[in-house]
Amino acid sequence: MSRILRIDMTSLSHKWEDVPKEYSDLAGRAFTSAVISAEVDPTCDPLREGNKLVISPGLLAGTTAPSSGRLSIGAKSPLTGGIKESNAGGLTATRLGRIGVRGIIIEGAPPAGTTDWFSIYVGKDKCEIFKTNEWAGIGLYELIGRIWKKYPSRPGIIGCGIAGQRLHLAAGIFGNNIENSDPGRFAGRGGLGAVLGSKRIIAIISDGTGGAPPQPKDPERFEKGSKALKEALENHPVTGRLKNEKGEPFGGLSNYGTNILQNIISEAGGLPTRGFREGRFKHAAKISGEAVHELVDKTREKFGDAAEGKYGHPCHPGCVIACSNVVPYEDTGKAHVAPLEYESAWALGANLEISNLQDVAELNRLCNDLGLDTIEAGNTLAMLMEGGLIEFGDGPGAIAALKEAYDSKSAIGRLVCSGALVAGRTLGVTRIPVVKGQALPAYDPRPIRGIGVTYATTPMGADHTAGYTIAAEILGIKGKVTDPRDVKKAELSRNFQATTAFIDSTGYCLFIAFAILDNDDGYQGMVDTVSAFLGKDIDVTEYGLAVLKKEREFNRRAGFTEKDDRLPEFFRTEPLPPHNVTFDVTDEELDAVFKDL
Amino acid sequence: MSRILRIDMTSLSHKWEDVPKEYSDLAGRAFTSAVISAEVDPTCDPLREGNKLVISPGLLAGTTAPSSGRLSIGAKSPLTGGIKESNAGGLTATRLGRIGVRGIIIEGAPPAGTTDWFSIYVGKDKCEIFKTNEWAGIGLYELIGRIWKKYPSRPGIIGCGIAGQRLHLAAGIFGNNIENSDPGRFAGRGGLGAVLGSKRIIAIISDGTGGAPPQPKDPERFEKGSKALKEALENHPVTGRLKNEKGEPFGGLSNYGTNILQNIISEAGGLPTRGFREGRFKHAAKISGEAVHELVDKTREKFGDAAEGKYGHPCHPGCVIACSNVVPYEDTGKAHVAPLEYESAWALGANLEISNLQDVAELNRLCNDLGLDTIEAGNTLAMLMEGGLIEFGDGPGAIAALKEAYDSKSAIGRLVCSGALVAGRTLGVTRIPVVKGQALPAYDPRPIRGIGVTYATTPMGADHTAGYTIAAEILGIKGKVTDPRDVKKAELSRNFQATTAFIDSTGYCLFIAFAILDNDDGYQGMVDTVSAFLGKDIDVTEYGLAVLKKEREFNRRAGFTEKDDRLPEFFRTEPLPPHNVTFDVTDEELDAVFKDL
Repeated sequence: MSRILRIDMTSLSHKWEDVPKEYSDLAGRAFTSAVISAEVDPTCDPLREGNKLVISPGLLAGTTAPSSGRLSIGAKSPLTGGIKESNAGGLTATRLGRIGVRGIIIEGAPPAGTTDWFSIYVGKDKCEIFKTNEWAGIGLYELIGRIWKKYPSRPGIIGCGIAGQRLHLAAGIFGNNIENSDPGRFAGRGGLGAVLGSKRIIAIISDGTGGAPPQPKDPERFEKGSKALKEALENHPVTGRLKNEKGEPFGGLSNYGTNILQNIISEAGGLPTRGFREGRFKHAAKISGEAVHELVDKTREKFGDAAEGKYGHPCHPGCVIACSNVVPYEDTGKAHVAPLEYESAWALGANLEISNLQDVAELNRLCNDLGLDTIEAGNTLAMLMEGGLIEFGDGPGAIAALKEAYDSKSAIGRLVCSGALVAGRTLGVTRIPVVKGQALPAYDPRPIRGIGVTYATTPMGADHTAGYTIAAEILGIKGKVTDPRDVKKAELSRNFQATTAFIDSTGYCLFIAFAILDNDDGYQGMVDTVSAFLGKDIDVTEYGLAVLKKEREFNRRAGFTEKDDRLPEFFRTEPLPPHNVTFDVTDEELDAVFKDL
Repeated sequence: MSRILRIDMTSLSHKWEDVPKEYSDLAGRAFTSAVISAEVDPTCDPLREGNKLVISPGLLAGTTAPSSGRLSIGAKSPLTGGIKESNAGGLTATRLGRIGVRGIIIEGAPPAGTTDWFSIYVGKDKCEIFKTNEWAGIGLYELIGRIWKKYPSRPGIIGCGIAGQRLHLAAGIFGNNIENSDPGRFAGRGGLGAVLGSKRIIAIISDGTGGAPPQPKDPERFEKGSKALKEALENHPVTGRLKNEKGEPFGGLSNYGTNILQNIISEAGGLPTRGFREGRFKHAAKISGEAVHELVDKTREKFGDAAEGKYGHPCHPGCVIACSNVVPYEDTGKAHVAPLEYESAWALGANLEISNLQDVAELNRLCNDLGLDTIEAGNTLAMLMEGGLIEFGDGPGAIAALKEAYDSKSAIGRLVCSGALVAGRTLGVTRIPVVKGQALPAYDPRPIRGIGVTYATTPMGADHTAGYTIAAEILGIKGKVTDPRDVKKAELSRNFQATTAFIDSTGYCLFIAFAILDNDDGYQGMVDTVSAFLGKDIDVTEYGLAVLKKEREFNRRAGFTEKDDRLPEFFRTEPLPPHNVTFDVTDEELDAVFKDL
């Protein structure tokens, strides 16, 4: 039986609790959102003692189901002021799953004025809260390296870096990569790193020693479902590690990672460039997944076994998709940053008009080292460019600005960690691409309207992963079900959002959607694994909508109205080249998404 | 008959319009709020072309009624996101009143990318919009000096400085002092300077040449009312310029100005000190009105006719209270800043723990020169101190930070103009004293709860002038009607807010309230002047509540809920020394203020 670990940072104590009956089916996002909804005052200051940070492995994390080891972290977001769930790979979910931890609820905070920093060790039936002042204020590569050495059991490590320790709104929660101590796995969005910082916690170390895979209630159905899902994943051109007749791999994600989208979305005219001024980046190819692939191959050729670049690299144990990568330095072949995702390459590349892949990798490495969400940080840098502090296209200038963040006395260093909304407002910018205070990801909502509907209406603030209509609008998953420029997208977005809320609760990676939307057996396999695990039939949409309903209700109690379900004005007034379209989905259509929820 | 001047900044054209029948009784705040409410989309971006800036002299501005020359400026506020009226003295209201301008509505904006700057000349039946690129980016003392020389008719001049031109949220709209070109008159609050900047307007010059006092419909009743009001003002110890038996003046405001409150509020334990950490400033006396008075006397003695320091100085023509001052440099006797008000001396002094009067005057001079609201700028500096960029008490450090604002490439210079909320969020501060995004003025709401109710519930964002319960809670006007620490203050605040909304529409200075609340004849005199002017009996409360209703409805349509009528969390959790009380007015009591409106 899994249990809940409740940690009180006011008294620096913990207790183990049984999972209450009403939470018995809930894990991942469903769990974090239920706890926050029930236990956090929606009007509380998210960076003070009333907020809670909830960590929950997906339902199937630690089991043998394929690609099921994702972690959910939730809280009231200091960036959006609403409820938040942020989702990441790494080791923590499977470690916690194997030692029977359904969730960790971190509440309270050390008294105001406390200068001490703490870290937490969670093992099988064991929890320790201990002072780690020596871990404060240092870069994450160094920090995780030290922790990784100290704990030879290869634990999951999550926590916050300098940005979170200073309560900056662009701070994410890092997780370590699966085979080393790099901080490459981020529950990046919503400023949750600052919530951890407000609790004065630097790291949470999850040790799976002595654990075992959680057991499904119906093992036979589970195995069958798991197998069907695995086959669907392995045979789909997006998720599969397929090989051509020469034995060379050609699967989309395993070869090029998420960054295969850089060229595709640019071609579609929806790649936000120069701070959402254009939809096509003429240098997209230079920072694309293809360019990373080529660089890896080139450095392998040149440096042989010493080369550290990789593609087709999993983000969590048991992932069959393996979309991640390690980007090497061109001149040494050593690892520079792992991974460079599409969103990061866009945010720190195209959106800033930076086309030098090494600069983009360095910006990403700095974000990882500081503990910054790359999407928020990239949009923040765009605001600094829009506001005249740096020039668009100036890679070294952007790198220098991020490096300032190590110095707590540097105003520009603080600004660069503060998120797009705050930085934009500081600088008098009127083109600030945020919804509910959170910066937009790498799809311009003007030519691709369904994703705009998701940005506007998800309770999470602008977030592509909350309802990834791109699959249907651009990638032709399940056939091209809808033209990206249609303005009627309420139902599409709602369906994606509901399915996503379900998937985010299971531990499955969202990318399984590419395969299961095209393959009914795979879809049924996914449903079967979850139903078998719980020992009852689960309805995907019903489960997902119940999560969304709770989240929206939290936001309403926090003071959100339908006026918060809107895109910034400039998307409605400035046409985006090359298609020269504005976002013209009506308010009524936006309000239709959750009208009856 | 007065008319409306409508200026379209998109086409750089203007037209004169008759005052519509439904606006016939409306001027000042009632006019600005009615126009914004009717013509501005509450969801528009306040710094883009959909917003309008409305300028309206109070109803009686330009008449012979005493202290009736105040100006209202309204817009959707970029600081609060709600409706805003900001009120100032100076010359503009009486100039516009005398040439029959009920209001100026500035709409549209030059196309994005326009680099030109414009100014506007308004004379009798005349309006010119002209390019003034040479007026951009320079300090306001220099700018207004140039304009004052160019127009020998002693016009009213309002506009925005560097802060507004860069769209900074702490930017106010300046007005010139009545006898010179100093930018001492500020419609400071709500970031309205940025709205003017977004229209690319630097200055609006109002020339009264050829005008005449507006005529009341019932001249006899007007004269009688005017006389009764004048007598009440002249005979009240707060507003009167009374003399003792030796012939020395002792009236509170004329001798010590608003800054007489520095010691009083500190003694009461409600003077926010060190960023709202304490309620008493041990050096309050050093920056008080008494200290300014003494400095003026000392420099007069020393420098004779060359001394420029003053007290008992009117802010607009025809003011009988004359609460303003000119603070001299100690070492030369020359004018340093005019005026130094209580709010400014607090925001730039006690709140920053700066006790050197010359430093405080210099900070105020810099705010005036940059076009910054002193309350917002002082609170912003407090956030820089709270966030570790400057030390509390460091006057030279604060001066240096403000001086950085002249350099558009300085991140700290931009930050210092961005308002307390944005600066606080940039720096990870969780003690940000704002309501609806606007920084709190000089009364801590914990020991003085009625003003806290006003801060929370006024549609304007934290604003003492919106419902100045201090008069009843501390100053004993109309007897001490209520203990400052009572938690039932809904009715008190509502009554003050309604009366204020009325007074802000008439052109009368709010300070007449001190006298008329204690003197029924004076009160009736005020009512008579307004009724006589309009030729019909006016009900003060009904008129005021109608204004408030419109304003609250605008905010509701902009997305505000009762959750926005709250003080920041730390006022509820941190007790304030010396009384060690928190703000414990219930949410129900706050919601009761406008429950049936």
